[in-house]
Amino acid sequence: MTTTEKDIVYVGNKPQMNYVLAVITQFNESNASEVVLKARGRAISRTVDVAEIVKNKFIPEVRIENIRTDTEEIQRDDGSVSNVSAIEITLRK
Amino acid sequence: MTTTEKDIVYVGNKPQMNYVLAVITQFNESNASEVVLKARGRAISRTVDVAEIVKNKFIPEVRIENIRTDTEEIQRDDGSVSNVSAIEITLRK
Repeated sequence: MTTTEKDIVYVGNKPQMNYVLAVITQFNESNASEVVLKARGRAISRTVDVAEIVKNKFIPEVRIENIRTDTEEIQRDDGSVSNVSAIEITLRK
Repeated sequence: MTTTEKDIVYVGNKPQMNYVLAVITQFNESNASEVVLKARGRAISRTVDVAEIVKNKFIPEVRIENIRTDTEEIQRDDGSVSNVSAIEITLRK
């Protein structure tokens, strides 16, 4: 299956249950077989929480298929560039 | 190779360079072919930083061999139990 844009959930600074619900919605209403969680920086910890909660508490048949990390460059307002870590967790039902 | 206790670096709340140096020391001085980074909760983001920095800035021949997540139970001082996410990143040279 090719991952289309709608199967990606970007995790940011909102409460983790927002993202848990977004993932559950993708799996149930959109009938996706794969949902990819993406995050950068401090949201990485929250992303692992979201994956674990979906898997352990809501959809037992979901498993973590793949976890990838990367380094991305961010341009700050003053024009300087700094590096930030990124994560991508692929969940599959 | 079986991972022995000394090849594990536990990432906590210290500055990330402490852990980067700990990993580099394992690879260089102890001549380990594999170092496992472990963390829980908010330190998970820092752990990804450490893995990316070691790989991209210090030891180019290191690659991330495996990333595993888990949920662990923590007993609080008041006796209550809560869940915390954990991560394990295996680096291999």
